[in-house]
Amino acid sequence: MRATAHRFNASQQAMIHLIATAGPLSRTRLARALGVGKPALTALTRTLIEAGIVLEAREEADEPRQGRPSMLLAMNPEYGYFAGVSITLEQPVLVLVDLTGHVTARLELPFSRDPETVATQIADGVDSLIADTGIARERLLGIGVAVSGLVDAAHETCLNSTHLDWHNVPLARLIRDKTGLPAYLENDAKTAATREKLFGEARPLDDFAVITIGDGVGCASFIDGKLRRGHNGGAGEIAHTTVEPGGRPCKCGKRGCLDTVAAPGAILLQARNAGLKISTIGEIEMLAARNDPAALDVLHKAGATLGSVIAHLVQVNDPEAVFVIDTSAAVGTLIRTLVQQTVTANVLPDMGASLRLVFSRVSGDFWSQTAASVAAHKFFVPD
Amino acid sequence: MRATAHRFNASQQAMIHLIATAGPLSRTRLARALGVGKPALTALTRTLIEAGIVLEAREEADEPRQGRPSMLLAMNPEYGYFAGVSITLEQPVLVLVDLTGHVTARLELPFSRDPETVATQIADGVDSLIADTGIARERLLGIGVAVSGLVDAAHETCLNSTHLDWHNVPLARLIRDKTGLPAYLENDAKTAATREKLFGEARPLDDFAVITIGDGVGCASFIDGKLRRGHNGGAGEIAHTTVEPGGRPCKCGKRGCLDTVAAPGAILLQARNAGLKISTIGEIEMLAARNDPAALDVLHKAGATLGSVIAHLVQVNDPEAVFVIDTSAAVGTLIRTLVQQTVTANVLPDMGASLRLVFSRVSGDFWSQTAASVAAHKFFVPD
Repeated sequence: MRATAHRFNASQQAMIHLIATAGPLSRTRLARALGVGKPALTALTRTLIEAGIVLEAREEADEPRQGRPSMLLAMNPEYGYFAGVSITLEQPVLVLVDLTGHVTARLELPFSRDPETVATQIADGVDSLIADTGIARERLLGIGVAVSGLVDAAHETCLNSTHLDWHNVPLARLIRDKTGLPAYLENDAKTAATREKLFGEARPLDDFAVITIGDGVGCASFIDGKLRRGHNGGAGEIAHTTVEPGGRPCKCGKRGCLDTVAAPGAILLQARNAGLKISTIGEIEMLAARNDPAALDVLHKAGATLGSVIAHLVQVNDPEAVFVIDTSAAVGTLIRTLVQQTVTANVLPDMGASLRLVFSRVSGDFWSQTAASVAAHKFFVPD
Repeated sequence: MRATAHRFNASQQAMIHLIATAGPLSRTRLARALGVGKPALTALTRTLIEAGIVLEAREEADEPRQGRPSMLLAMNPEYGYFAGVSITLEQPVLVLVDLTGHVTARLELPFSRDPETVATQIADGVDSLIADTGIARERLLGIGVAVSGLVDAAHETCLNSTHLDWHNVPLARLIRDKTGLPAYLENDAKTAATREKLFGEARPLDDFAVITIGDGVGCASFIDGKLRRGHNGGAGEIAHTTVEPGGRPCKCGKRGCLDTVAAPGAILLQARNAGLKISTIGEIEMLAARNDPAALDVLHKAGATLGSVIAHLVQVNDPEAVFVIDTSAAVGTLIRTLVQQTVTANVLPDMGASLRLVFSRVSGDFWSQTAASVAAHKFFVPD
C-alpha cells in the first residue's frame, strides 16, 4: 500500500485533525471550530463517513436527557492501524494500535542492535502481524520507532544514542525502504509526551511536561500545543542535569547527573552501597516503611532531587500540568510524596497553586504504544 | 489620536511585520516570503511607502559590486514612536523610541508606587515629551510598561509584584483611560527578551533565552518565535529556583533561591558577611584578582550557581542562544568565566557545542527601552 491511498484534501484533513485530537465532537462544535457553515459541514462529514475514517457515535450523557440524544462524530478505530516499537537493550515488542490508540496486536521481535537487522525484523514483524490478524495491508498507516537518544527534526535519523551506541543511524529510511510505509523515529520521552497528548490525559492541554521514569529519567514538553524538540533535538534532557557536583560518574561523561541519583538503577545501587540486601525498589520502600534509615535516606534523596529538577522545569516553562509516568515500578508512595512536597515547596506560590502533578504507573508494551503514537500524530497532524 | 488612524489590512500588516522583524529586505525576498507575485508586491509596497511607514534604502554591501546597488525596503524610523517606562523602586524614566528602536527623547518622572499616580504621571510625561520634541500626537503608537512581577496574558493587569507590593493592578487600563493610547504591561524579563527579538541580536533567532541581572535575576524565553509566558504568566521565574536548600531567606517566602546567591545585592551581602569592606561588585572583582580567598569564594559561588541554573534551562528547552544581560555592572570577568565554564561542563556535549552564550552590559534607560519594545511588538505583530 502507499500513503497516497489515504490522502485527504485540506478541509478533510482539518476535520480529521480536530476529531482525532479533540473528538468525539458534535456537528455544531465542528462547524464552529472549522469556521464553515452547515451545508459545507454536512458535505464534509458525509465524505469522511463514506471514506470510513469517521463514524457517528451516540453521546454518552451523565444524566438522562429529554429528547433524542445528539450524535457525535468520532474516529473509526478500525479505519487504520499504526505499528510501534521501542528499541532498547531488551527484546523489542512490536504493537499495532488502532486509530484511537488501543492495542490490537503484539509480537515479540528478536533482539538486535544492528540497524539493518532491526529494520528487517520490523518489516518482517509487520508482515507477521498482518498475516495473524487478517488486517488488510492498506490499513497500515505508518510505523513509529522510539529510541533513547537524540533524533533529528525530520524523525529520520538517530543522531546519537549512548544507550544503543548509535551515531547517525537513518533507521526511519531503512524501515521505509523495506516496508513501503511511512516510518518515523523519535526520542522515547518525546514519544511518551506525544501519546499523552494524542490519546492520554493531556489531550485538552497545550502546555504540559511529561517525566518518564524508566531505565533513566526522560522528559519532554508540549508548549503552545506543539512538541518542543529544541535547537539540537535535545529539549528535555534533564537526566543529565547536574544535581550533585562531583557526584557519581554518569555514562554521558559527566558526574552527578540526575540519572545517577534518581533513575531506578541508581536507586538500587545506592541502596546496596548502603548495605541493604534488596533486589527491587519495592523492597527498599518496604524497609523505609519500617523506618530503616538507609532506605529512607536513599528514597528521600531520589525523590527530593527529582522534585527539585521538576520544580526548576516548572519555574522555566510554567506548564499547566506535569505527568510523572513510572514505567518500571520505581516510584512508590514515598518518592511520590517527596516529589510532590519538593515541587510545592520550591515553586512560587502563584505557580504551584494551579500546577497539576499527576503520577501514573504503566507496564507492558507502554513504550511500543508511545512509538505508534508518533506515526498516528504524523497521520492526524501532518507538518 | 486613535489607533484606528494606523490600521492596515492583512497583506499590509504581513509586510510591515516582515520588514520590522527581518528587514531591511529586498523586493525579491519579500515577494517570496509573502507568497505574492511581482505586481501585487509593487502595489503593496507603493501603498506602504505612500503611507510613510516603509522607505527604500540602499543595500550596504561589504564589497563593491557590479551594476547598480539593489534597493531594500526598510521601516521609516520617523513614522511613529513608542513610549516606554519601567516601574521599580527608583525614579522612573519615560523614553520615546522610534520605529527601529532608537531612543528619541527621555524624561524623568516623579517616583510613586500608587497605580493611579503612576498612570497620571505617565500620561503627563507623554504630553511633556510631545511638547518638547514637537512630535505630532498621532505619531505616538503605544505605551509599554515593564514591572517586576506576574502580568496577565492580556498585558493589562499586574497580578502580583512582591517588589512593588501590587496585587491585581490594572495599570494598562488606567494608562489607556488617561491617554487614549494603546498601553501594555509586561514582566520586565519578558520586555528584555522582546527587545532582544525585535531590535537586538536575537532578531534572526526563534529559540533563545534572555537572562537579566538587575535587582534580581530575570529570565524569559522565545520558543518557536513566540514569547513564552507560561500557564500563569510565570515562565522564566528562575530567580526563585532553589539552589541552596535551607539557605538564606528570600523575599518570596522560600529559602536559598538563586536570587539569594547570584543577584547583585546578594553578592554584596555575602562579601560583607565574609568580612570584605567593599561597596561595589567591581571592588570584589579587584580583590579576587589579587587572590583574596573570600572574594574568590563569593564570586565563584555566584557564577557557578548562575551557570548551573542556565545549564538546567538549556537541558530543558535546548535554545540556540542564551543572552546574559547585565544591567547593574554585576557580571565581571570572573563571574562570566564561571558561568561559561559551568554551562559547558553541565550540558550534554551535543547541545553545548552549538549553544551561543552571549554576555552584554547595558546601562542607562535600558529597562524603559525594553518596555517600549513591547508596544512596538504589539504594533508590528498584532495578536
